Amino acid sequence: MNLGELGEFGAIARTVARLRTAATVPAGAIGMGDDTAAIPADGRTLLFTIDTMVEGIDFLADVPAECAGFKIVAVSLSDIAAMGGTPTAVVVSVACPRTTDVEWLDALNDGVAEASRCFDVPVLGGDMSVSPTIVLSTAVLGECDTPVLRSGARPGNLVCVTGSLGGATAGLRILGIERVLKKPEGDYGHAGLRLLDRHLKPEPRLAAGRALAAGEVTAMIDTSDGLMGDLGHICERSGVGITLDAELIPVDPDLAELAGRIVPDPLVTALTGGEDFELAVTLPSNAFEETAVAVEETGTTLTRIGVVEAEPADKAAPVRVIKDGLPMMIGKTGWAHFE
Amino acid sequence: MNLGELGEFGAIARTVARLRTAATVPAGAIGMGDDTAAIPADGRTLLFTIDTMVEGIDFLADVPAECAGFKIVAVSLSDIAAMGGTPTAVVVSVACPRTTDVEWLDALNDGVAEASRCFDVPVLGGDMSVSPTIVLSTAVLGECDTPVLRSGARPGNLVCVTGSLGGATAGLRILGIERVLKKPEGDYGHAGLRLLDRHLKPEPRLAAGRALAAGEVTAMIDTSDGLMGDLGHICERSGVGITLDAELIPVDPDLAELAGRIVPDPLVTALTGGEDFELAVTLPSNAFEETAVAVEETGTTLTRIGVVEAEPADKAAPVRVIKDGLPMMIGKTGWAHFE
Repeated sequence: MNLGELGEFGAIARTVARLRTAATVPAGAIGMGDDTAAIPADGRTLLFTIDTMVEGIDFLADVPAECAGFKIVAVSLSDIAAMGGTPTAVVVSVACPRTTDVEWLDALNDGVAEASRCFDVPVLGGDMSVSPTIVLSTAVLGECDTPVLRSGARPGNLVCVTGSLGGATAGLRILGIERVLKKPEGDYGHAGLRLLDRHLKPEPRLAAGRALAAGEVTAMIDTSDGLMGDLGHICERSGVGITLDAELIPVDPDLAELAGRIVPDPLVTALTGGEDFELAVTLPSNAFEETAVAVEETGTTLTRIGVVEAEPADKAAPVRVIKDGLPMMIGKTGWAHFE
Repeated sequence: MNLGELGEFGAIARTVARLRTAATVPAGAIGMGDDTAAIPADGRTLLFTIDTMVEGIDFLADVPAECAGFKIVAVSLSDIAAMGGTPTAVVVSVACPRTTDVEWLDALNDGVAEASRCFDVPVLGGDMSVSPTIVLSTAVLGECDTPVLRSGARPGNLVCVTGSLGGATAGLRILGIERVLKKPEGDYGHAGLRLLDRHLKPEPRLAAGRALAAGEVTAMIDTSDGLMGDLGHICERSGVGITLDAELIPVDPDLAELAGRIVPDPLVTALTGGEDFELAVTLPSNAFEETAVAVEETGTTLTRIGVVEAEPADKAAPVRVIKDGLPMMIGKTGWAHFE
């Protein structure tokens, strides 16, 4: 059997689960299964994570190198944000062919440096290898007081998300349309440019993550794989189900503006599109107002989108979305009501 | 200009140098240019490093997956050893094609787990990506009291190395001969099998690194690129030259036994062959006896091989080797005396 036959999520779940440790895990440490590893250290917690991006898979070969450099740092920092932490240091590994232009690498490094400056975290180390394909990896060290895990969601909690959803996928789609139809991005106006930026230069919600962790949030994850998949991880780790209200999902306003031109259904894109790097959380309903104010002070919003249930309605699909009183059935080509 | 035109070391040096940080580096932190990054934290120092191995470049496609998994962990731990540190946690990133056999990945993970057990460090996180080529990355978090840097070598210091040199390159060469001539490895007897092991399953000198750091060692590096290249890094960072005595180089005894059959000149292999993951250090001559005893207690040896000079005899080649009273000129195909 190969990974393709196992299906993408099956393959990832199986491999990461088996990458388990054989050595003794320090008392209180968190290993596999959350946004980062967490290691208690003198009253604080060290956070530790690694991410990889592959040319042609995780970023298009013709994306500006600055964007690839910026994004590989931003993506790793988002994992630190999802624990409620502050990044301490980044190390970067670059694997690329001998035929890579030095100018391309310089631009990549400019992007890494820009992210370092934007998010105020030093890049303290690097490694370089020869590889037939460009592969970028970053590891981030961070810290926090008490990390917010995926496992703390309780029945009756509200489900909330920062910012807006679907924009990064819309930006990727614009790049794809541009490639195939040779249409300039400008066709989509200011909204199109902002969506492109959302895809190319994501912003980890570090300040919002800390504001959420300082409140009464019970579980947190970043929306890297898509809202429904990521909330599914919270369901799995917390042993709960989640019901979302389609009317409440904060669809990216620029995606909404271009609805129909770039994706068939903005709501489905917002529910399933990856790489928005927003934070999805659960919290007691009486803590919502205060928490939303704290998040707004960091420059974004917190929107209630659903509730945590004691049991998933369907074990195989622990997150369901209610639209017009009926659960949506979301497939690869859109959605239909269950009837 | 592409990386190939710049030459391997030029390309690496340029890129890693440019991967410098744009954010403020914490006071006392060590960034680029040593075996790991080092960050002061509450009287201790956190160590942080990333390494990548690419299939077909850093490991052969037909190497057992267990060995690749073991090695990617061991290689990163060697960087922690070279700072005199103890590893705290490892995270692993696996990028591979969808066509990868699940059994291959399971074996890879067994190798990661074996290294975790052997070197008593928990694997606390993982990431998985799709990639046309298999690319493995590990990041390691470690700690120490005071790290031993590459920059502290002083004129008059002795140059010493742990264990023996050239064995890993000899093991790689045996694999190559086996592939081309279809000779079984067994042709080389017990010595051949041990050399293969040296290449496939390197042992980071963690205990020796701590013993060295606890003594009066002034600079330390692991021999990952080859002794002369690695000592060159100490020369560059310390602003010194190094003169080695060819008679004193501890050539791997199994390599010496198979001399001529697998490499043309064991001494040149010991001086230039990479991936032995021994520790090369400088220290005051009056500290040698005591330090050697401390290293022996960790199960290996410490051999004096040369001295630190105030100035390199040749700026372009700061490390020279004296044999029969004359400097060796070491090229890609062997060596000749300068005359």
